[in-house]
Amino acid sequence: MLRLLASSSLALLAAGAPASDKVSSLPGWIFDLPTDWYSGYLSFGKKHLHYVFIETESKDPEAPVVLWMNGGPGCSSMDGLFYEHGPLLINEDGKSFTKNPQSWNKLANMLYMEAPVGVGYSYSEDPKDTQDLNDDQTATDNLAALKAFFELYPEHKKRAFYVSGESYGGVYVPTLSLKIFEDKTVDFNMRGFVVGNGLFDWKLMAESSVPFLYGHGAISTRKKEEIDKACQGNYANPSDACQQLVDSASENARGLNGYDFYRDCFSAGSSASAGSLKALGSKTPLTGWHIARNPELLADLIRAPRPAHPALRENVPCIDSVGGTAWLGTKEVREALHIEPSLPNWEICSGNINYTRNMDYSAPKLYAQMMHKYRILVYNGDTDMACDYLADSWAVDSINATVDEEADWVPWLMHADGGEQTVGFLTRYKTEPGLQFLTVKGAGHMVPQWKPEVALAMLDRFLNNKDMRTGGAPQSQTKTVVVV
Amino acid sequence: MLRLLASSSLALLAAGAPASDKVSSLPGWIFDLPTDWYSGYLSFGKKHLHYVFIETESKDPEAPVVLWMNGGPGCSSMDGLFYEHGPLLINEDGKSFTKNPQSWNKLANMLYMEAPVGVGYSYSEDPKDTQDLNDDQTATDNLAALKAFFELYPEHKKRAFYVSGESYGGVYVPTLSLKIFEDKTVDFNMRGFVVGNGLFDWKLMAESSVPFLYGHGAISTRKKEEIDKACQGNYANPSDACQQLVDSASENARGLNGYDFYRDCFSAGSSASAGSLKALGSKTPLTGWHIARNPELLADLIRAPRPAHPALRENVPCIDSVGGTAWLGTKEVREALHIEPSLPNWEICSGNINYTRNMDYSAPKLYAQMMHKYRILVYNGDTDMACDYLADSWAVDSINATVDEEADWVPWLMHADGGEQTVGFLTRYKTEPGLQFLTVKGAGHMVPQWKPEVALAMLDRFLNNKDMRTGGAPQSQTKTVVVV
Repeated sequence: MLRLLASSSLALLAAGAPASDKVSSLPGWIFDLPTDWYSGYLSFGKKHLHYVFIETESKDPEAPVVLWMNGGPGCSSMDGLFYEHGPLLINEDGKSFTKNPQSWNKLANMLYMEAPVGVGYSYSEDPKDTQDLNDDQTATDNLAALKAFFELYPEHKKRAFYVSGESYGGVYVPTLSLKIFEDKTVDFNMRGFVVGNGLFDWKLMAESSVPFLYGHGAISTRKKEEIDKACQGNYANPSDACQQLVDSASENARGLNGYDFYRDCFSAGSSASAGSLKALGSKTPLTGWHIARNPELLADLIRAPRPAHPALRENVPCIDSVGGTAWLGTKEVREALHIEPSLPNWEICSGNINYTRNMDYSAPKLYAQMMHKYRILVYNGDTDMACDYLADSWAVDSINATVDEEADWVPWLMHADGGEQTVGFLTRYKTEPGLQFLTVKGAGHMVPQWKPEVALAMLDRFLNNKDMRTGGAPQSQTKTVVVV
Repeated sequence: MLRLLASSSLALLAAGAPASDKVSSLPGWIFDLPTDWYSGYLSFGKKHLHYVFIETESKDPEAPVVLWMNGGPGCSSMDGLFYEHGPLLINEDGKSFTKNPQSWNKLANMLYMEAPVGVGYSYSEDPKDTQDLNDDQTATDNLAALKAFFELYPEHKKRAFYVSGESYGGVYVPTLSLKIFEDKTVDFNMRGFVVGNGLFDWKLMAESSVPFLYGHGAISTRKKEEIDKACQGNYANPSDACQQLVDSASENARGLNGYDFYRDCFSAGSSASAGSLKALGSKTPLTGWHIARNPELLADLIRAPRPAHPALRENVPCIDSVGGTAWLGTKEVREALHIEPSLPNWEICSGNINYTRNMDYSAPKLYAQMMHKYRILVYNGDTDMACDYLADSWAVDSINATVDEEADWVPWLMHADGGEQTVGFLTRYKTEPGLQFLTVKGAGHMVPQWKPEVALAMLDRFLNNKDMRTGGAPQSQTKTVVVV
C-alpha cells in the first residue's frame, strides 16, 4: 500500500511556499543551493505528481514561472532538470554534480513535473490509473496538478506562466495549453508555450525521413532518386516497392544515435540495456519514418542504459542516464526530495505504464486555435533524427499563419569569441502575440543539453520578448503607418 | 638576390638522408623529436621547393612514403603538418605545441612539400617563375621535386609511395599522379593516391550547393521548391531567375564557416584580416556554387587571420593559422628549418603568386586513366561547404567505375567507447587495385584536423589494404569461383 506523504497534504493549507517540501540539501552537492529548491507532490484525487520547483537566480520579481515536461510518453522531467537545463547537472558517477552556467532558472522559476502518474516518482493510490493513460487524461491531470501547484505557491500566481517541453512534450504542451485556454476558472497568468523537437504530426514525420537522411549524407543520391521514383512523395501510405526501398535506406541509420546524427551512440558498455527494447528487434533505426509507423519507438528508445538485469537484452539506446538513475535511486536522495517511500526506484522512462496515444489529431490544429492568444515558440535542434526539423517546420507552416517575409528562414545570431555567429535559422509568423519557429544548428534532440548557451539565449529572447534574431529590442511585426 | 643554400646542393651528392637538412631541434619543443625530421629544399633548375620529411614512428621497414599537399592554389602544406596530421600541432600562442596522438607519421614516412614556387618558403631564383604558374607546370615541377627527393633519400625508393592532398590538392594530386604514370623514367614505387575534400569539377560544385544547403537546414523547403522550379537543375548556366534565387538563398550561408557548416567561424578578433579578400566584397558566401563561378574564392578565402595590417580590410576567413604564422616567421624557426634567409616571412596562403587554373578538364577523366593502375581513395568530410561531399561523390561516380553493390554507400565503422560507431559512409567500386569513396561524418574541410582518430583509421585501412568498412582483412572485390 502506498502511504500519502503527510507533508504534501498539510502544505495545501499553507499560504506560501510549502516549508515541508523545501529541499534542505542535495546529497553529492556540498555547497549551498544557489536558490531555494522545493520537491514534493502535487496532489488531486488519488493522484500525486512529483514536482521539483526551483526559484530563479535572477532576483527579478517579474521573472516568469516555466513548467518543463519531458516526453516519452513515460519519460521523466528529471531528465530535463538533471541533464538539460537545471542548475546542477548530474555526473556519470551518479554521485556528484557540475554547476550549469546556462541553467534556465537564471531566467525563470522552473517547475519540473513528472507526468503522468506512473512516471518517475509520480504515482496514484489506485494502481489502475497508471494502466489507463492517454493524451487527454494526461492533459487534464497536468492542469489539475498545476492548479495544486498554484494553491501551494499562491505568491507566484501573478507571474507570467509558460508551458514548455520536448519530444512527446510536443503533445503534452499544446494539449495542456488548450486545457488552460478553455478553462475559465484558471486564475494564473498563462502567456504562452515552447516546444522543442516535438511530436507534431505522424504523416509529416514519415515524409521527412528520407530528405533528412539524404540531406545529411546517410543515403546516396542514387538511392534517393530510386526512392523518389518509387514513392512519389507518398510516404504515409507507401507502395510495397517504396516501403522496401525506404527500409533498406534506413538501414544506414541503424547504428546512429537517433537523437543526434553526428553524436556517438552512448553506451554504458556491458551494463547497458533497455527494458522494452526487447520487443523491438535490433534492426529498427530511429527515424521519423519508423516512429510514425511504430510510435512506441519514441518512448522505448529514449530509455537509457541502466544497470544490467538478466531479463533485459543488451542494447544501445544512445542516451546517457546512468548517473541520474543511480543518484535518484539512493535512499538519501529520495529522502532529500521527499519521495513517497514505498515507490520503486526511479527510471528515466517508465516501463510500467499503459499509455494510449489518442493524439489522432494533427497538433497544428491546436496551435491554430491558440496562436492569437499565446506567445508560441517551436524550436528544433537540427541534427535530431527522431523529431526532425523538417517535419516540425512543415507542421508549423501548416498552422497557416502568414510568414513574415522579413524573417522567412533567416539566420539567427549570437556573439561568440570572434564575432557574430549563425546559430540557426528563424521563421517568424505575422501573428500577435507571436508565433516563431527556429532551428538550433548542430544540436540534436536535447537542445539545452547539447547547445546550452544557444538554448539559454533563445529562452531569454522568447521570455523577454526580444528580437529572436539578434537579441535586440523586438521588431514590430505589424507595421502601422500613421498619417498626420 | 636569393642565395642558394649550400646544404641542399651538397646533399645531392650524399647517398642517404642529407645530414645538413636534419632538424636538430624545434624552437618551442623542449623534448626530443620522436623520429628524425628533415627540412630543406628540393631543387631543380632555378626552382627550390621547401620540404619537411618526417620519418615514421612505426619502425616498419615496409612503411610507405606519403606526400601531402595542401591546396589553394597558393596555400602551404605546412598547414597539413602543423594543423592537421603532423606529430606536433602548433598552439594558438605560436610558441608551443601539442603532441598529436593521431599523427600520420605513425603509419608512414611523411613528406610535406610547399608547392608551387612562391608558396610558403618555396622560391625560384627567377622571380618570373612565381608569376607564370598553372596546373600543368605545377604538376611538372612537383614531379621534378619528387625526383630530387628520391635522389636525396635513395634508401626510401623501394617503399610504397602515395600522393595525397586536400582541397585544391584535388588538382595537384591526380595531375602529379598522371605525370608519374606517364613518366617511364620514374624509379620510385608509386602505388596510389588519396584526395580529401578535393576540387573535382566546377559544374558539379555549382549543382551541389543548393541540395547541400537545403540538406543541412540552411534554406527552407519553400525556398528549395522555388529554386527547383526556376532552375530545373541547370545550375551551371542558370537563368536570371534561378541565379537570383540561388544567390538570395546563399545569403543564409554568408556568416557560416565555409569549411564546416557546424563550426563557428574563427576570428582572431580585431587583428583578423585577410589580404586579398579586399577584392571580394563581404557579401560572398563560400559555397560550391560561388566557388564554381569565382574560383579565386577558394584560394582567397582559405587565407587565415594574420596580424593586422592597415592596408588589409578586417574579415573573417574562419580558419585559424595565427600560431603557425607567428612561429614559422621567427628567425630561430627559419634557422632550424634551414629556410633560405632572404625570403619574406611565411604566409599560410601566398598572395604573391600568379596562378592560372587550366584545369579545364573534369578531374574524373584523369582518374579513369589511372584507376586500373593505382589504388585510389577519395574522402570528404561531409559538413564542408567549400568542396562538398555531394559534388565529390558525383564526380567519383562519373569516373564510370562499376559500384560494388555490397558496399554502395554503406556505413563504415570504428570501435569507440561504448561500441561500434558509424563514422561515415563508404562506396567501393569494382576495380583493381581499388577505387573507394567515403564520407567522414561530421568533419569539415580539414578532416585530419577535426576528426583525427577517424582520419588515422582511414589512412591505416587504405595504406595497409584493410577492409575500409571494418578495418578487418580485405574483402575480395572480384569473386572468382573455381570449378573443379
